[in-house]
Amino acid sequence: MTGSQKRIRDYGIIVGDLPTGTTNRITDVKGVKVGHCTIHNDTNHTGVTVILPGEDNPFLHKYTAAAYVHNGFGKTIGIPQIKELGTLETPIALTNTLNVGKVSDALISYMIETVHQEGKEVYSINPVVGECNDSLINSIQKRAVTEENVRKAIQIADVLFEEGSVGAGTGTICYGLKGGIGSASRVITIDNHNYTIGVLVQSNFGSTRDFILNGKPIGKDIEEQLKKPQSSYSQEDRGSIMTILATDLPVSDRQLYRIIRRCGVGIARTGAYTGHGSGEIMIGFTTANRHSDDHIQSFSCIHEDLINHAFKACAEAVHEAILNSMITTEPAHTTDGRIIHSLKEFI
Amino acid sequence: MTGSQKRIRDYGIIVGDLPTGTTNRITDVKGVKVGHCTIHNDTNHTGVTVILPGEDNPFLHKYTAAAYVHNGFGKTIGIPQIKELGTLETPIALTNTLNVGKVSDALISYMIETVHQEGKEVYSINPVVGECNDSLINSIQKRAVTEENVRKAIQIADVLFEEGSVGAGTGTICYGLKGGIGSASRVITIDNHNYTIGVLVQSNFGSTRDFILNGKPIGKDIEEQLKKPQSSYSQEDRGSIMTILATDLPVSDRQLYRIIRRCGVGIARTGAYTGHGSGEIMIGFTTANRHSDDHIQSFSCIHEDLINHAFKACAEAVHEAILNSMITTEPAHTTDGRIIHSLKEFI
Amino acid sequence: MTGSQKRIRDYGIIVGDLPTGTTNRITDVKGVKVGHCTIHNDTNHTGVTVILPGEDNPFLHKYTAAAYVHNGFGKTIGIPQIKELGTLETPIALTNTLNVGKVSDALISYMIETVHQEGKEVYSINPVVGECNDSLINSIQKRAVTEENVRKAIQIADVLFEEGSVGAGTGTICYGLKGGIGSASRVITIDNHNYTIGVLVQSNFGSTRDFILNGKPIGKDIEEQLKKPQSSYSQEDRGSIMTILATDLPVSDRQLYRIIRRCGVGIARTGAYTGHGSGEIMIGFTTANRHSDDHIQSFSCIHEDLINHAFKACAEAVHEAILNSMITTEPAHTTDGRIIHSLKEFI
Amino acid sequence: MTGSQKRIRDYGIIVGDLPTGTTNRITDVKGVKVGHCTIHNDTNHTGVTVILPGEDNPFLHKYTAAAYVHNGFGKTIGIPQIKELGTLETPIALTNTLNVGKVSDALISYMIETVHQEGKEVYSINPVVGECNDSLINSIQKRAVTEENVRKAIQIADVLFEEGSVGAGTGTICYGLKGGIGSASRVITIDNHNYTIGVLVQSNFGSTRDFILNGKPIGKDIEEQLKKPQSSYSQEDRGSIMTILATDLPVSDRQLYRIIRRCGVGIARTGAYTGHGSGEIMIGFTTANRHSDDHIQSFSCIHEDLINHAFKACAEAVHEAILNSMITTEPAHTTDGRIIHSLKEFI
Repeated sequence: MTGSQKRIRDYGIIVGDLPTGTTNRITDVKGVKVGHCTIHNDTNHTGVTVILPGEDNPFLHKYTAAAYVHNGFGKTIGIPQIKELGTLETPIALTNTLNVGKVSDALISYMIETVHQEGKEVYSINPVVGECNDSLINSIQKRAVTEENVRKAIQIADVLFEEGSVGAGTGTICYGLKGGIGSASRVITIDNHNYTIGVLVQSNFGSTRDFILNGKPIGKDIEEQLKKPQSSYSQEDRGSIMTILATDLPVSDRQLYRIIRRCGVGIARTGAYTGHGSGEIMIGFTTANRHSDDHIQSFSCIHEDLINHAFKACAEAVHEAILNSMITTEPAHTTDGRIIHSLKEFI
Repeated sequence: MTGSQKRIRDYGIIVGDLPTGTTNRITDVKGVKVGHCTIHNDTNHTGVTVILPGEDNPFLHKYTAAAYVHNGFGKTIGIPQIKELGTLETPIALTNTLNVGKVSDALISYMIETVHQEGKEVYSINPVVGECNDSLINSIQKRAVTEENVRKAIQIADVLFEEGSVGAGTGTICYGLKGGIGSASRVITIDNHNYTIGVLVQSNFGSTRDFILNGKPIGKDIEEQLKKPQSSYSQEDRGSIMTILATDLPVSDRQLYRIIRRCGVGIARTGAYTGHGSGEIMIGFTTANRHSDDHIQSFSCIHEDLINHAFKACAEAVHEAILNSMITTEPAHTTDGRIIHSLKEFI
Repeated sequence: MTGSQKRIRDYGIIVGDLPTGTTNRITDVKGVKVGHCTIHNDTNHTGVTVILPGEDNPFLHKYTAAAYVHNGFGKTIGIPQIKELGTLETPIALTNTLNVGKVSDALISYMIETVHQEGKEVYSINPVVGECNDSLINSIQKRAVTEENVRKAIQIADVLFEEGSVGAGTGTICYGLKGGIGSASRVITIDNHNYTIGVLVQSNFGSTRDFILNGKPIGKDIEEQLKKPQSSYSQEDRGSIMTILATDLPVSDRQLYRIIRRCGVGIARTGAYTGHGSGEIMIGFTTANRHSDDHIQSFSCIHEDLINHAFKACAEAVHEAILNSMITTEPAHTTDGRIIHSLKEFI
Repeated sequence: MTGSQKRIRDYGIIVGDLPTGTTNRITDVKGVKVGHCTIHNDTNHTGVTVILPGEDNPFLHKYTAAAYVHNGFGKTIGIPQIKELGTLETPIALTNTLNVGKVSDALISYMIETVHQEGKEVYSINPVVGECNDSLINSIQKRAVTEENVRKAIQIADVLFEEGSVGAGTGTICYGLKGGIGSASRVITIDNHNYTIGVLVQSNFGSTRDFILNGKPIGKDIEEQLKKPQSSYSQEDRGSIMTILATDLPVSDRQLYRIIRRCGVGIARTGAYTGHGSGEIMIGFTTANRHSDDHIQSFSCIHEDLINHAFKACAEAVHEAILNSMITTEPAHTTDGRIIHSLKEFI
């Protein structure tokens, strides 16, 4: 079923120059898996999306990682420790703004259990949970996402995964249209070796009039069409975007930091100017430089002059992932009954 | 009962030059209250401590605030938004490391409810929860602190409050001795007007041999005395210290940031060198520059050349608060049955 | 003569939605002046551009200011003190990369002299000098810009000023075409009061194929046309862009910092992804919140919810300023004899 | 002659626990050399001190480096690029505040020449120049340090070097006593392999009453003795301290950053609280992880759990280096004829 969603390329829209990975998803980075748990009931339309960095326990062999706060009107947990230590030690979860506490507690349960299964105990865990505010569609005050939901998302995580209004993207809105989860990937070549840069976004930002579809400023047009009773558009650039970047490129945490700072380029190309109320937080990890128990460890890093390849790949992948997050949605309703349309109605 | 605790000054030890506030506590800053909820049962010795910045709802009139990560091996939630917006909009809670998720969720419940009581709704909240790792004394994996505990701590918050092994300090260890909650304050005078700088610490750091008691390096001596069966000392500088600073001084968020960066001076004067495993995070707020709904707002700030007064006050208050956090404790037991002694046994 | 340059709007290209200031320049912010000194001789094609924040001595009444390092492959002097103190105390100068030392020394001379003229002495000065690398056109190793040049630029600084290949823009290259100095401004309205946001850029970045002209990706086309002997284009996103932002909006240094972080949006809209070798540094100041000698000072700040107006203005103005910096140039020659074409040849 | 200076250990004062390197200087790190050029004439008492990271050209094989701004009231040039790229590509120079421009220009000349000697050309250089304000002793407005002085300091740089009132320390004042250049080193052992951490400080900070001599708060006593006509003491914590840290420990730029952040602990232990006017900037480099031209490079890093050894070594070495910078001085005179005494008169 996952494969049945039409993505932005299926509409003939090609973002950028670089080749994509096999599935054009973050999971093109070997070992990475993504799982959703979606909640639809009388009052709640929300969920959780998890990104697993690899097969084995991330706590026992931490990933080289970086975090960048592009605009800090956000409640993401886990940033200070990633910045200090340059490591990721848990799966990354995305959810709604008010659910961060419960989801981070769920990640802690999961980590205690999985580390215990390997005959060890953990007393200090840095769960990483990002969020967007889905309160126009979802009764956010209820904090509907439970530990069970998080467990389920982890359990079913896979290489193929749905996009659009699923998991943490269930209730999000992007450029006044339905937002959601989107993904894309790019392949870069260094010395005849291919490396993959994959991203996943939870899109929930932008004013309708600012929207640019791969260079075409169609936002004002769409806004005009949405100015009717029962429809809805975004007058201001509010909300947020979470961006997760995975790669198998050998880079240091500093280099990763530089790479994820280019996520903002991809966002800007869709038209937004990173509004005040937008929590724009980027988290990146590489599968190439795992940490071990060795007293002296060896890490491989690309020459800094080659990093432009990764910058370009990052900008392109984020750009496309945002478009994928929008084009794969169906229309939804706000809590007060207005329609949030899907980009696919305007293409 | 609170007043009955002997504090470091009661032993004739005077830290620094500046005069203290009335009670030599963070609550000397008008409006600030502190409450604890302490948990003692078969497996858990932990708790929560809340700092309320003032009488009215902080969300509706936010406080000018700053956050500084001195060493980021910590799981505090709420830092990115304080940095971006320079505001505090909830009470601050301190607890054990693995309880941050649950306590932040409890703060969200509390904020939804209290904002609702004022006829408004809130869909985006930035709870601020700090932590120390009390796993030597407390079965931390159980995450024993509940929403009910947080509510109780808020409810009983007052100007006078206990120090030592209470609330979030119940299970902490400092320089291998019993740590806990400590507080102190200083008064500075500008143009004949008195301003108060108050701090509260949750102390959980330091190796025993490094401990300096107001200039006297007595750590090695204490370590020798603790080298006996059933006793315990700290060989390495692990753990953490959370520092909350309150003031009524008119300062900008940038100035507050500069002030709280001097907390590290107070810590260093007790002997530690900010170990790798220590999450040292400082959060400061002023009651002087509340935010309103006005489109153009006016803020008062001291001339930058006067900020040294605040720096000195901060360093002295943190120094004394750490000593207060230690001297007010009783001995405790680790989960494996060793004694954690109290500083009061060595003075 | 200044008024005779055709700017991007004169070609019918309108960037963004917001109204411009009177001259669509940074100098639309009252008090701000700009001066150039251009050097053309046998080996050198370079210069210096100065931005004077106001009529009176900036050292004696400092400006509220902010600095942001978007990509730190740059040699700008003065950043740490702006970040620490939130103030600007000298004119800002722009020049070529290797001339920063000499130009900052010239600014020091100038400040010692002008402060002395007011009957005071200065022993500590934080000169602010930004740079781009013009070594493809200019024999940069000679450091041709002298103290006399800096003095002259200050002396002739005015509200009207030339753009393109003048001053610090004499030898710069942007998207493989001739770059230079460009400027633009936007007016925003809060409570019926108009405020101006003006920017000035020194453009020296971007690969030709990435160039987007107000939404149209014409870079690849231009690259094809430039693939001929004796012409030149940029294969990689190298070089730098310096952006100076001035405003009369009442904002704090933190708010200014947030505003100048949106300069990157304007840059991204011209096609670049902030390449590795690009020193992208933004410096902003407001004329609204000058510092005085008062012990307690009052500063006015807009409500944070209104800051989106400034974000949008910043993004639009930077976008247009870059285009102005390119369209006002004439073709130039590299040191090895190739032609650097002007955008005006392709429009 | 260098060996003839009595250092703090020669007075029986042992700072910390760790063993020192062979000469207890920054130059105990293999390859590192230090050179001074001191200027004494009618009006000027100042100079320049250079730290050469190794024998070969640093530009062609850059050093892994980090920079930390502890308090940014300082004019150091070169920080943004070190932070972005994690590399050092020139010698580090220290001088007086107003001489940074000229000295950085001199470093550029030197780099152009030395790179040229290796058959290459350089068009972009990030000179690193730190400073303290020596204007109480030196007529700082004259900017007396010339390119010739910088060249001479580089030329005579050696493993043994004088401390106290030499080079960049000629006119500095520390805790109201004569300050200057000081150095110290520590050796740490990991897996039977010895590594050296060496520091060099330019001390120019602190109020007299705050001074602590290895735990003894003798500042107030000294202040009393200095309260006489023609003598001088410091009432406020002004001035600055530059700290350069070198090591052969295999660390990443992030780890180096963490290490140099502990310099502040050493400073605090001498009594200061990092005053407002103090530019406290730390720059660190390791000789272990040089950058090469390889597309994929390998770097060795210690396990993060071992970094406490380096933290402790850093704190101890900075502490001792400050005392060395003071104890090796002779009394000097301020420009207005008062005596700045030497610590050696009070010991």
